[in-house]
Amino acid sequence: AMDVCLIQTLILFCSLICCFWADTPSNKSTPNIIIILMDDMGWGDLGVFGQPSKETPNLDSMAAQGMLFPNFYTANPLCSPSRASLLTGRLPVRNGFYTTNAHARNAYTPQEIVGGISRDEILLPQILKKKGYVNKIIGKWHLGHRAHHLPLEHGFDEWFGAPNCHFGPYNSSDRPNVPVYNNSQMVGRYTHTHPEGLDFIFHQNMAQRPFFLYWAADATHAPVYASKRFLGKSQRGRYGDAVMELDYSVGQMLAWLRALGIDKDTFVFFTSDNGAAVMSGPKQSGSNGPFLCGKETTFEGGMREPAIAWWPGHIPAGTVSQQLGTVMDLFSTSLSVAGLSVPDDRLIDGLDLSPESSSHQSHFTPNRPIFYYRGNEMMAVRVGPYKAHYWTWSNSWEEFNRGINFCPGQEVAGVTTHTQQEHTMQPLIFHLGRDPGEKYSISAVTKEYQDALSRITAVVEKHKKGLVPGVPQLNMCDMAVMNWAPPGCEKLGKCLKAPKSQPWKCDWPH
Amino acid sequence: AMDVCLIQTLILFCSLICCFWADTPSNKSTPNIIIILMDDMGWGDLGVFGQPSKETPNLDSMAAQGMLFPNFYTANPLCSPSRASLLTGRLPVRNGFYTTNAHARNAYTPQEIVGGISRDEILLPQILKKKGYVNKIIGKWHLGHRAHHLPLEHGFDEWFGAPNCHFGPYNSSDRPNVPVYNNSQMVGRYTHTHPEGLDFIFHQNMAQRPFFLYWAADATHAPVYASKRFLGKSQRGRYGDAVMELDYSVGQMLAWLRALGIDKDTFVFFTSDNGAAVMSGPKQSGSNGPFLCGKETTFEGGMREPAIAWWPGHIPAGTVSQQLGTVMDLFSTSLSVAGLSVPDDRLIDGLDLSPESSSHQSHFTPNRPIFYYRGNEMMAVRVGPYKAHYWTWSNSWEEFNRGINFCPGQEVAGVTTHTQQEHTMQPLIFHLGRDPGEKYSISAVTKEYQDALSRITAVVEKHKKGLVPGVPQLNMCDMAVMNWAPPGCEKLGKCLKAPKSQPWKCDWPH
Repeated sequence: AMDVCLIQTLILFCSLICCFWADTPSNKSTPNIIIILMDDMGWGDLGVFGQPSKETPNLDSMAAQGMLFPNFYTANPLCSPSRASLLTGRLPVRNGFYTTNAHARNAYTPQEIVGGISRDEILLPQILKKKGYVNKIIGKWHLGHRAHHLPLEHGFDEWFGAPNCHFGPYNSSDRPNVPVYNNSQMVGRYTHTHPEGLDFIFHQNMAQRPFFLYWAADATHAPVYASKRFLGKSQRGRYGDAVMELDYSVGQMLAWLRALGIDKDTFVFFTSDNGAAVMSGPKQSGSNGPFLCGKETTFEGGMREPAIAWWPGHIPAGTVSQQLGTVMDLFSTSLSVAGLSVPDDRLIDGLDLSPESSSHQSHFTPNRPIFYYRGNEMMAVRVGPYKAHYWTWSNSWEEFNRGINFCPGQEVAGVTTHTQQEHTMQPLIFHLGRDPGEKYSISAVTKEYQDALSRITAVVEKHKKGLVPGVPQLNMCDMAVMNWAPPGCEKLGKCLKAPKSQPWKCDWPH
Repeated sequence: AMDVCLIQTLILFCSLICCFWADTPSNKSTPNIIIILMDDMGWGDLGVFGQPSKETPNLDSMAAQGMLFPNFYTANPLCSPSRASLLTGRLPVRNGFYTTNAHARNAYTPQEIVGGISRDEILLPQILKKKGYVNKIIGKWHLGHRAHHLPLEHGFDEWFGAPNCHFGPYNSSDRPNVPVYNNSQMVGRYTHTHPEGLDFIFHQNMAQRPFFLYWAADATHAPVYASKRFLGKSQRGRYGDAVMELDYSVGQMLAWLRALGIDKDTFVFFTSDNGAAVMSGPKQSGSNGPFLCGKETTFEGGMREPAIAWWPGHIPAGTVSQQLGTVMDLFSTSLSVAGLSVPDDRLIDGLDLSPESSSHQSHFTPNRPIFYYRGNEMMAVRVGPYKAHYWTWSNSWEEFNRGINFCPGQEVAGVTTHTQQEHTMQPLIFHLGRDPGEKYSISAVTKEYQDALSRITAVVEKHKKGLVPGVPQLNMCDMAVMNWAPPGCEKLGKCLKAPKSQPWKCDWPH
């Protein structure tokens, strides 16, 4: 029921870029920035990361022309917190995209959520404006859908897409279908067409200005769809069709950058918001390659992401960086690319991975830790090749027994536990180099364990000491706040009547 | 305790090739053939197949310059039968490399095995001789170690390596250390040096003749070793060090082919004998990427192999073939490359994958089945994307409870069974495209299942109808047949006294 097919979206990109750049000279001090964020695509879905079908020739080429990051992570194994971290450069526990309703629960922004991105946070496009960037988001926002949470309130100049996941179609009585916005106005709802949006973008004229394009595609989130051209074309079923289509779109975008002669002036980064949703089954989800479990978990399958940086003439072709990276680094890196600094009034978790940065020039910041949070709990930490689990949990026995399995075919005794298991006194430690699948925890009586633990303990103590949690935004729900009557609905005759406000503490089962 | 380090071996290759080719004009009608066979290396150990550490730049380059086969299989999930199939082009159940001692047991050639490759089989080098090829094997033979089983009795002109796996060192009373041969003479045993072997190869002169080089490296089989230059260099521990060293050696070999100007006259194929031995733990074994279980099993992790074909000017660079291939295809393909035909007096399972073959030119032989045997039992069959399991078994409860785990961290209920589970009336069917990990069997009540089953049933019926099993060679064992006194031991003073012959039916637990 998605009517803007990706090919069309792609044409729009090109038009956009074309208009931006048609008569524009090379502008090296403020290169364009494109962040391509997949939804629930797994590390193992790319040919270059070992997908057996090898059906991502464009992403594989992008890697061959750029830099591959096999050790790249999200900030949370769920969509909304991950996206909030990407745009703020801060862990969800700092930027407020977490819940305190229950221990170690991931939370997000369904239509009934009251909260969203706070005005206290500084988002990447807000800072980019200082250097004249035009900022556009195409696709899924997912940082709250109430008026004050929407993209144009937080630094974006343009938006074409939806505020929430489109799990529908709904019948519009209990739950409205998710609106599609063009900038600040609704132009339709999912299950309806919205050609007016296409026209609007097509006719924009923003020449002479650098741009930041945040393409937050939602095509591989369940329910999975692909347009006719790709349906049935992959060897992997519907999910593979969607991957092929996204791959094709990425290829077309890079080809356009080259055709327009602005490839050397455009920094492009490709990644995904969290691990493949393996609980959805093989027809609706992707692959996390050799990694354990998937989305919602703090095992590698939940948080290791495919990642490729591309910038001809600036990033050497065909390189592989073993630097541990995170989506939060896209905040710091993008600012660095634009010649801007990160805010100095708050802790920023992002690292500058740009070609000119010192961390890149040494090619390795070896002690850079990765924190694996689930809601309000730091479940695990990675330092170098070692990952220590302080808490393990897949999902509850109750859910598991109902058939919801976050680790299908991957029960590791004592690791993929169905009770929240505390290991803070003696964390489970894995060597992710020789054991990427987290199957063989290192014996606690070995020197290797003790050395790894003391190295990690120092990092954890420093982290906990400096941690100032943000106000949790994802605690309260209310049916009244859903997308009943988004701005613009009157013109379209698509306003719906909201029910009476009855807030409750949201229930986050995972 | 392996003293011929791979670097040295490599220099030998080069010397060998150099000597062959120093004054030799391009000889396109009989191109050289090099088959590089790894020992227990897994599909997921190569960067190009998704190893997170990306420490195989040379193999990745080989793939970028050649053709990658993501759907390539061995003929048996254990070393000896796999190697016998590679050199005969026939399934183990036809060439005799199987046992009837118990149902569905893999067998191989330890020192106490009485049998080995039969003279009734025709090996690849025997046929290549017709066109004047000089045939050399470097490394592990593993097709029987008694005099009449050795390489020079079966078509090879030269050999440098060992007849069995070197699980030692042994104390030489119960069990002799494995000998190292130079051609038909022992030149030492493992734990001893054998520089004479190096000299011998170095001074060979076989110019003006095409060569077939079968490099059967054993470096990643447990116990894993790497030479000093690579020790501690990988991010994956000792096993990763060994992979880096092999990768380096492959890179050097290809570089030498180019330096000598014979790259366009040399067909090179890289693969492995079976899946990674994941039961050995992460320090001693590799990765099967997204696939289920490992060595010894007929799940994908046991039989899917990394595979790269390289032949500049003949095989287009950077291509990926979705053709289902097997190690037996190396028999048919090598003969085709040399302008020779496969024997017409017996059934050959190999397919011609050479660039000039019709199957290659159509780029796909879609109905080519893959048979997954475990000893005397056809456990599973793949046709197109569908794999039907007629029998499932990982290992026995008894062994599993003793800590031997062929599927660590990968229990799939009803699939990785610890009893031999028969499904012949209603096979478990998986779609390997969307479910490479064999985690979600397709419901038997669906049309998809019925369609796949009828397609596979036709293939199985044809296969079983035409099957003439060979004489099983791997049934009898005897301590007296071990490598007590190999030819050449007298000169070295290394002969040992054999015990009295007491043959027994070998016990194959898996």
